[in-house]
Amino acid sequence: QAQRMLNALHPAEIAHLLESMPPAQRELVWELVDQEYDGEVLLHLGDEVRQSLIRGMDAEELVQAAHSLDVDDLADLVQDLPHAVLQETLDGMDKQRRQRLEAILSYPEDSAGGLMDSDAVTVRADVTLDVVLRYLRLRGELPDLTDSLIVVNRYDKYLGLLALTELLTQDPEHTVAEVMDTSTAAIPAETPAHEVAKVFEDRDLISAPVVNEGGILLGRITIDDVVDVIREQADHSVMGRAGLSEDEDIFAPVVRSSRRRAVWLGINLATAFLASWVIGLFEHTIQRSVALAVLMPIVASMGGIAGSQTLTLVVRGMALDQVNRGNLRWIFSKEIAVGAINGLLWALVVALIALIWFDSLRIGGIIALAMIINLFAAAVVGVSLPPLLRAFGVDPAIAGSVILTTFTDVIGYASFLGLATVVLFSL
Amino acid sequence: QAQRMLNALHPAEIAHLLESMPPAQRELVWELVDQEYDGEVLLHLGDEVRQSLIRGMDAEELVQAAHSLDVDDLADLVQDLPHAVLQETLDGMDKQRRQRLEAILSYPEDSAGGLMDSDAVTVRADVTLDVVLRYLRLRGELPDLTDSLIVVNRYDKYLGLLALTELLTQDPEHTVAEVMDTSTAAIPAETPAHEVAKVFEDRDLISAPVVNEGGILLGRITIDDVVDVIREQADHSVMGRAGLSEDEDIFAPVVRSSRRRAVWLGINLATAFLASWVIGLFEHTIQRSVALAVLMPIVASMGGIAGSQTLTLVVRGMALDQVNRGNLRWIFSKEIAVGAINGLLWALVVALIALIWFDSLRIGGIIALAMIINLFAAAVVGVSLPPLLRAFGVDPAIAGSVILTTFTDVIGYASFLGLATVVLFSL
Ligand SMILES: [Mg+2]
Ligand SMILES: [Mg+2]
Ligand SMILES: [Mg+2]
Ligand SMILES: [Mg+2]
Ligand SMILES: [Mg+2]
Ligand SMILES: [Mg+2]
Ligand SMILES: [Mg+2]
Ligand SMILES: [Mg+2]
Ligand SMILES: [Mg+2]
Ligand SMILES: [Mg+2]
Ligand SMILES: [Mg+2]
Ligand SMILES: [Mg+2]
Ligand SMILES: [Mg+2]
Repeated sequence: QAQRMLNALHPAEIAHLLESMPPAQRELVWELVDQEYDGEVLLHLGDEVRQSLIRGMDAEELVQAAHSLDVDDLADLVQDLPHAVLQETLDGMDKQRRQRLEAILSYPEDSAGGLMDSDAVTVRADVTLDVVLRYLRLRGELPDLTDSLIVVNRYDKYLGLLALTELLTQDPEHTVAEVMDTSTAAIPAETPAHEVAKVFEDRDLISAPVVNEGGILLGRITIDDVVDVIREQADHSVMGRAGLSEDEDIFAPVVRSSRRRAVWLGINLATAFLASWVIGLFEHTIQRSVALAVLMPIVASMGGIAGSQTLTLVVRGMALDQVNRGNLRWIFSKEIAVGAINGLLWALVVALIALIWFDSLRIGGIIALAMIINLFAAAVVGVSLPPLLRAFGVDPAIAGSVILTTFTDVIGYASFLGLATVVLFSL
Repeated sequence: QAQRMLNALHPAEIAHLLESMPPAQRELVWELVDQEYDGEVLLHLGDEVRQSLIRGMDAEELVQAAHSLDVDDLADLVQDLPHAVLQETLDGMDKQRRQRLEAILSYPEDSAGGLMDSDAVTVRADVTLDVVLRYLRLRGELPDLTDSLIVVNRYDKYLGLLALTELLTQDPEHTVAEVMDTSTAAIPAETPAHEVAKVFEDRDLISAPVVNEGGILLGRITIDDVVDVIREQADHSVMGRAGLSEDEDIFAPVVRSSRRRAVWLGINLATAFLASWVIGLFEHTIQRSVALAVLMPIVASMGGIAGSQTLTLVVRGMALDQVNRGNLRWIFSKEIAVGAINGLLWALVVALIALIWFDSLRIGGIIALAMIINLFAAAVVGVSLPPLLRAFGVDPAIAGSVILTTFTDVIGYASFLGLATVVLFSL
């Protein structure tokens, strides 16, 4: 009865259930899943959980699972299949399906070509709607998420879209050419996935045709796959910031998780030692006034916070294509002005507190000046780092924050302790 | 000619262009936008930019813009309109449109009721498809994103969905009842927006009916609005982490930006002073061994990084409903084990480096022990904080990281300097 309840769920919901379970329980439940749903469930799992389940399946089960999938979904699964299974799956396919799969796989996973499906229903421009209506009734079932038929010429060149709503409301005597929408441009197969998502979002599309350089129809992209792209992008920036992968399995075995997180901790340890080394340069100064050691983390931390705000805004702006060469200078000036204003404001507050706490006008003055320097530097680094990282092919959403705080730590400690050295040893 | 090119763009693209411009330029371009697009463009802008443009428009323009919108979109705009404009808009509406608007506004913005539109096309179950086909041809145009007609009884109770694809492929002699899909449950109007998004994602829906407690059809939700919800959620967690709003205008005036960011900096300053106060308790210890001041940020920072990894995983798991009472204990044990393993690993590395750097076995031992304590504490706080915050109605994605690093700073400094005090003053 538990099994029956389980298999009454949608594959995406079964996948969700599996992802919410510790490994032992997960394997038990996976055994209960109907074999006919295996493929769809695997598809809806994050990479990590999927791979762990695939490792436990035998070749025959996997070949079965692969056969049950749409070509575009199979393309997503291919890279996770063992070589022997993949070969057997390909061998068992009819020629058309195999060609379609190969067409999708010939494009990068995160491009329009990699996202497309080859299930588009096409019609010719010169027939009447009546002919199309009769053709559809003969054909029977339409693929999921079909909101329009794709109009092509005899060479499969894309001409326009015939919406089902038009087909249902327009006079059947009209020809397809008279009714079709030619204003929706087809998406070239090389278009990056995030641009495809932008077009779907802006134009509220349900599906869109994909073409090659010659304008020949290759397939279509549907909104359900675009939604998955948007969700993955979002997870990527949230998880990447903590050095995690977006497909991270929260129930991964301890050893595997520890190993992976150790890498990120190691990187951060190196940056932390860099900051310590800077502090170490000023040992004599701290020896003379321990209050400096008490206050120095404040300067470093405020720089990190202010810088993260700037960095987050610029990284988001770049992801949304809001930031470009033309306005980067404007943003730069603005962020520096904001950094200066907040630097001045909090310099005053911190100076006052330091003055009262340590009863020293000097220390108050030193920390105020160091705060201004560090918040100014934070703004400069926060704006310039993302375009620089991108130019070097590094994802600013992942590496930006580690590098930024290394700067603000080093500059914060160096400016505070450096100023203190000058003041304490020269006055 | 610039104006003609501008108005050839889709309203969402005009909105994107406006968001990518400094204020002065933005106002110039906004003047060039055709009045008939004003409403749609405003709709696609983030709250902040939208409000700044609305402030510059006169009442008549705003009333015009409001009239051009669909009811569900107007509902999104209502809260940004000045009272007088809203009144005039309501007065100018026909009774049906006004009632529909009020129905949407009676639900929270982030619920199914707030997301729905009232443009659903309904049919009765007992008629034949042929009757429906003739009705649609008489009716003409269907609303955007119509993939199915909604089947209701004479009391407007929801019965099922009639997909346009079925209508086009099934025998017209069939009745609606024979062909309709009754397996898709309607969404209750109180359902929170993020659950609506989950259903759309899992089931790959294009639209879904919304009902009240009595099962009476109120309207329908379409995927384009769900995509906007998903994008907003994502922006919320990325921006919220830095104390920014998801609608933040990257080109907002300096004074406005400075004022808002100052709040976040102030909160962080308070937590930084807390850490400083802890360090201040150990001034005598630092006085005796300045190496402690050099190394102490390492312990604090490694705790912060390790804790953020745990926190990010748990917050994401909670957002995806993967974490629940049944498995929280499992996650807790796992994270503690990971924290312990990485604590031990990096404790050894740091101890070795400290030993070589300061030639002191004592300091090496102290920092190793402090690292283990802090990475253990980081795991405990990282797992328990998100459920606790949520229980108090605080969004863990926003407040989590500030609170966590306050803990890891305080525990890191206190354990390292505390252990040092015990060792240095007692041996
Ligand atoms: Mg199975
Ligand atoms: Mg992936
Ligand atoms: Mg599918
Ligand atoms: Mg994938
Ligand atoms: Mg795909
Ligand atoms: Mg949209
Ligand atoms: Mg698909
Ligand atoms: Mg205008
Ligand atoms: Mg909003
Ligand atoms: Mg609309
Ligand atoms: Mg709405
Ligand atoms: Mg889906
Ligand atoms: Mg809508």
